[in-house]
Amino acid sequence: MQKLSVAILGATGAVGQRFIELLENHPWFEVKEVVGSSRSAGRPYGEMVNWVLDGSVPDSVAGLTVKSSDAALDSPLVFSALPKDAAQVEFELAAAGHMVCTNASLNRMAEDVPLLLPEVNADHIALIDAQRRKRGFTTGAVVANSNCTAMPVVMALAPLRKFGVSKYLVVSAQATSGAGYPGVASLDILDNIIPYVSGDEDKLETEPLKMLGRLNGERVDMLNAVASASCNRVPVIDGHLVVVSVSLDTAPDLDEIITAWDSFRGPHPVPSLPSAPEQPVRYLPQIDRPQPRRDRSTGRGMTTTIGRLRRCPLLGYKFAALSHNTIRGAAGCSILNAELLAAQGYLGDFRPVSAQMAFGD
Amino acid sequence: MQKLSVAILGATGAVGQRFIELLENHPWFEVKEVVGSSRSAGRPYGEMVNWVLDGSVPDSVAGLTVKSSDAALDSPLVFSALPKDAAQVEFELAAAGHMVCTNASLNRMAEDVPLLLPEVNADHIALIDAQRRKRGFTTGAVVANSNCTAMPVVMALAPLRKFGVSKYLVVSAQATSGAGYPGVASLDILDNIIPYVSGDEDKLETEPLKMLGRLNGERVDMLNAVASASCNRVPVIDGHLVVVSVSLDTAPDLDEIITAWDSFRGPHPVPSLPSAPEQPVRYLPQIDRPQPRRDRSTGRGMTTTIGRLRRCPLLGYKFAALSHNTIRGAAGCSILNAELLAAQGYLGDFRPVSAQMAFGD
Amino acid sequence: MQKLSVAILGATGAVGQRFIELLENHPWFEVKEVVGSSRSAGRPYGEMVNWVLDGSVPDSVAGLTVKSSDAALDSPLVFSALPKDAAQVEFELAAAGHMVCTNASLNRMAEDVPLLLPEVNADHIALIDAQRRKRGFTTGAVVANSNCTAMPVVMALAPLRKFGVSKYLVVSAQATSGAGYPGVASLDILDNIIPYVSGDEDKLETEPLKMLGRLNGERVDMLNAVASASCNRVPVIDGHLVVVSVSLDTAPDLDEIITAWDSFRGPHPVPSLPSAPEQPVRYLPQIDRPQPRRDRSTGRGMTTTIGRLRRCPLLGYKFAALSHNTIRGAAGCSILNAELLAAQGYLGDFRPVSAQMAFGD
Amino acid sequence: MQKLSVAILGATGAVGQRFIELLENHPWFEVKEVVGSSRSAGRPYGEMVNWVLDGSVPDSVAGLTVKSSDAALDSPLVFSALPKDAAQVEFELAAAGHMVCTNASLNRMAEDVPLLLPEVNADHIALIDAQRRKRGFTTGAVVANSNCTAMPVVMALAPLRKFGVSKYLVVSAQATSGAGYPGVASLDILDNIIPYVSGDEDKLETEPLKMLGRLNGERVDMLNAVASASCNRVPVIDGHLVVVSVSLDTAPDLDEIITAWDSFRGPHPVPSLPSAPEQPVRYLPQIDRPQPRRDRSTGRGMTTTIGRLRRCPLLGYKFAALSHNTIRGAAGCSILNAELLAAQGYLGDFRPVSAQMAFGD
Repeated sequence: MQKLSVAILGATGAVGQRFIELLENHPWFEVKEVVGSSRSAGRPYGEMVNWVLDGSVPDSVAGLTVKSSDAALDSPLVFSALPKDAAQVEFELAAAGHMVCTNASLNRMAEDVPLLLPEVNADHIALIDAQRRKRGFTTGAVVANSNCTAMPVVMALAPLRKFGVSKYLVVSAQATSGAGYPGVASLDILDNIIPYVSGDEDKLETEPLKMLGRLNGERVDMLNAVASASCNRVPVIDGHLVVVSVSLDTAPDLDEIITAWDSFRGPHPVPSLPSAPEQPVRYLPQIDRPQPRRDRSTGRGMTTTIGRLRRCPLLGYKFAALSHNTIRGAAGCSILNAELLAAQGYLGDFRPVSAQMAFGD
Repeated sequence: MQKLSVAILGATGAVGQRFIELLENHPWFEVKEVVGSSRSAGRPYGEMVNWVLDGSVPDSVAGLTVKSSDAALDSPLVFSALPKDAAQVEFELAAAGHMVCTNASLNRMAEDVPLLLPEVNADHIALIDAQRRKRGFTTGAVVANSNCTAMPVVMALAPLRKFGVSKYLVVSAQATSGAGYPGVASLDILDNIIPYVSGDEDKLETEPLKMLGRLNGERVDMLNAVASASCNRVPVIDGHLVVVSVSLDTAPDLDEIITAWDSFRGPHPVPSLPSAPEQPVRYLPQIDRPQPRRDRSTGRGMTTTIGRLRRCPLLGYKFAALSHNTIRGAAGCSILNAELLAAQGYLGDFRPVSAQMAFGD
Repeated sequence: MQKLSVAILGATGAVGQRFIELLENHPWFEVKEVVGSSRSAGRPYGEMVNWVLDGSVPDSVAGLTVKSSDAALDSPLVFSALPKDAAQVEFELAAAGHMVCTNASLNRMAEDVPLLLPEVNADHIALIDAQRRKRGFTTGAVVANSNCTAMPVVMALAPLRKFGVSKYLVVSAQATSGAGYPGVASLDILDNIIPYVSGDEDKLETEPLKMLGRLNGERVDMLNAVASASCNRVPVIDGHLVVVSVSLDTAPDLDEIITAWDSFRGPHPVPSLPSAPEQPVRYLPQIDRPQPRRDRSTGRGMTTTIGRLRRCPLLGYKFAALSHNTIRGAAGCSILNAELLAAQGYLGDFRPVSAQMAFGD
Repeated sequence: MQKLSVAILGATGAVGQRFIELLENHPWFEVKEVVGSSRSAGRPYGEMVNWVLDGSVPDSVAGLTVKSSDAALDSPLVFSALPKDAAQVEFELAAAGHMVCTNASLNRMAEDVPLLLPEVNADHIALIDAQRRKRGFTTGAVVANSNCTAMPVVMALAPLRKFGVSKYLVVSAQATSGAGYPGVASLDILDNIIPYVSGDEDKLETEPLKMLGRLNGERVDMLNAVASASCNRVPVIDGHLVVVSVSLDTAPDLDEIITAWDSFRGPHPVPSLPSAPEQPVRYLPQIDRPQPRRDRSTGRGMTTTIGRLRRCPLLGYKFAALSHNTIRGAAGCSILNAELLAAQGYLGDFRPVSAQMAFGD
């Protein structure tokens, strides 16, 4: 099988680097184009990038020449790690026929953009058809993934939809990698907590409602729930922890909730996609888990871990949940989204071999 | 004025050290006795203590010989930094005539023990009379201060009592000094959060109700409110941050709440006590405050700082509050309690000169 | 091939846990016995251990019953993660026929105990014969690995032996995991450096001299060099960084030194052992490397990374070197030592299949 | 006494803020002008500054209007917290009659600029006369203070000059505040060490030689010593720790060295200047000190603490030393320099009252 050529927008940033790291040796996709700022354009990626992840730039990408943001791209599939204010280029790329899987927040809440989380709302992929019709796209589209802090909230609440989620209150402890690089200054965060993360509280009170919503023809009906969020930055490298209180319409036992989490699987063909974890959600029985450093890499960073489920005297139930913010909460989720698009035939002629076999086409 | 002799129980521990640091150069009290474990007894304090605070052991205390826990004490006033399971000795000391101001949790909720916070419930001091009668004490008594994480909650809610506090939900980010020394292992907390602090959630759901309760003859009627708490340990040295959502019976404007905080003062004679801060509660207008490292020392560690007041879609209002956990939340509060006892004539013949003047006896 | 049964002494400690983690899915060895304190003995390992590494206890070990330290062991191969003062049991186990690969410091400098580092001094294995003869052992022996901070020093200096190492000065920045668990208190190390690590300076000034020494019959002639060490604890989880100045008898160019490092390989059959990294030493060209968090996992934690080679106005050359202290500097090195013993026929009848093939027996 | 009006260059940066904090309530000087970037100019300091120190902007400065860098200044005394590449303006200000006490590195090694450290080389102030003659200045001059990491080295070596300092080797552990704000990204330093600080190794190998040099007419003869430095950034907020090995021509006992440190005082009138600490250098007898968090505030951040003196097998002696990098190593030292200039009559007509008394004019 020939791998599909992939371009990365915002390739020199922290999330762009995570895309490149996760796509090294990917069975279906191969990074062939890296797009950066005008300052970097025309020079080898390996020289221009300040690699902030562990280890070094993968050799397969180090030699690629950085393209400028207005260069035409050859890759059918584009991953975007652009900041919000640069993300308007994404619809232009979609218009030019590219499938854009984006981590940027700009278009997440647009009615015709799927805010896709394969295990949770794979059927929202149908919004692509509306998007193409409305915007005159043919082979292209923009598919978004959620805010990184919304991720553990949605992964924890999705298995509870059957109990009727009517209210949730979230307090977050967010890792510094969520702010990109250079992002949070060490003078701001060593021996400190910052009780504010610009923009994230709004996202936590809205994005989950769309993600957990029900597809209704070619639109999504929002989940009818009331939400409240308070966001905090903490001196942790990776892993967003959320402390959640939730009201459920039915009154499940604690054991029923734990079973709902541990047995949660995405719909066919999601569990067999290359980046899908064995368990999307895993309940940890220890009294003091999940912990960011110890649990963020569960399922290669794609499993959301949950712990401390107990009664909340005010809202009914409370617990803590954790997702790796730059893997499950950003690049890893975008890649899983693209795998779903490939498996469902949204990437033109490209048909992944293992998906054909796995999915029984 | 002759200073009053003071003894410290648990003097070699982290809170014991904070007592000694704060009492250096205290205008009324002087540390004359330090009580420690049998391992330390009989040796100079300066040799036995592993001083974990900044700087070094104050010279005035370094030369004191550590007394064992069963030694008779001469000091009328005793500060206790004992762990919970050692705190049963406190009533024995009270029976022997000592006024014991304790930071231990053992007796906080006993009906006849005041859980004293001078600015908030100075009148609860009247429980001492009931305690003495019931237990046959003459000059002695046990007076407790609250859990260190309950402190910022109570300081923030006390000025709001007039609006009718009916519900509060707290998520904490607690400094490692709250666990004493050696306490939290560095392997547990570097690049990490622990979403569990043994015992503290119960305390946060009960102690504030007593502290905010109303004195009714010689007992306290608990505040009639429902509470929910989730406690977390974070890689911060000092300063407990709480994120609070609260329901108020009346519907004050945000400005009214801020005014209630900034104008909050304790009753006479509390504001003139040596350890009382100018402002017990101070609202910070910046969008990203309070922060533990930058705000914990406000008012020499005795001021609770609050920020980010805004509407909570679920409970009505939300905000963040911060108290220095080993000063306002432990040793500093105990000392302020003792100052109030002195000013009110509960320390036998001892009459502080400045209090006489200030309080106009 | 049937795997060889292995016992772990000190199995519940931090290094013991690292042995268990690294031996999960090992091609030759299988953990069948775990030995702990009397408090743990008789109970399932998974219940007794406070797992401080990432993730959870491997299932294959969680169900093993912890044995007490005086129980007879069945495993021919024993890994010891005992503290120094408990390590006297190791010679008793050797007398009983066990091959003991130990991380404890007690016997490292004993004349008949090889301080083994396969890439550097595989021939020192011959000390086993002297040890067996001297102590009356038959199939057993004690084989030590070095202090974890000595590791990056020795790995960096070994390839330079051909230039004549006459002096080295080391200043370390040691991770907290080097002190075990609970080890370093968070109150001691957050926002702090401790310029002292008990015992390590002596080890850094002596152990490398033995490890870099020359086998002379059945003894080792120490390297004739003068050393000075200053050890510091830093707020880093894993990875010991050393800043080294060194005097070399010949005057190699910087490039010659870098080539010596990058081309360094252990003698046959070391490079083909399962735990051997592709490159034991790797020079990083970036100006600000190696860094503990980013480089400690190079070669699955078995590669020592070096950077910043430049002239030292005082000693000739200077550079920084980094080894993962609980992998290459402890458990990983012990396992590599055991693999060498297996390949060389020191583990009784056990003959690893891949080694037979690889080593061409 | 009327206070002297003072201007701060680079007032919104981290060192600029430290100047403002330290000058609040200064007995002689009063901040009347704050100079910032063109972005800030014309607006109130309190609105433009992102205050990164503890607490909040002092009220006395918050209302000052920020001046642009080309505005004429009224203050006779100017403190400069400019970055190196902006510091060329300093000589222009000196030409215009201002006394400029600068923390910038640009002009430190200029032959006619005193690299002033009052306790160590107060007589170097005589270079001002050469500077004025050579450059045609009348009342103005530029006076520099040293690199913040050179500070603990010089403070430790100055008392040892009488033993003949011929070699020193320094390895530093530098706090992140040394890089200004935003400075070091949290993603670079949490759970990490960076073994490189741009430019500092050169400064450590040269600036101390000038500072410890001997005034010879109107020039300074450098100390004749060979130096080697390796610089590292560590996750510490404030306080630069240096690990030093030193060769001394005579062979003092360890006790003689400790006595030299503890008895070290600056020449008249330095000890009586307002910012001078009681002890410029203090030896700590504990085995594990000095530590940045616990010892950086000794002497209000102006005392250099030293510990762990012992023999170095290679260079003779070794020890660890610590200075608060933004107080003693930057703003605090500049202020002490200005106090010396005032006391010696270099600030025009200004005569500090307390200095007159103290200095017996």
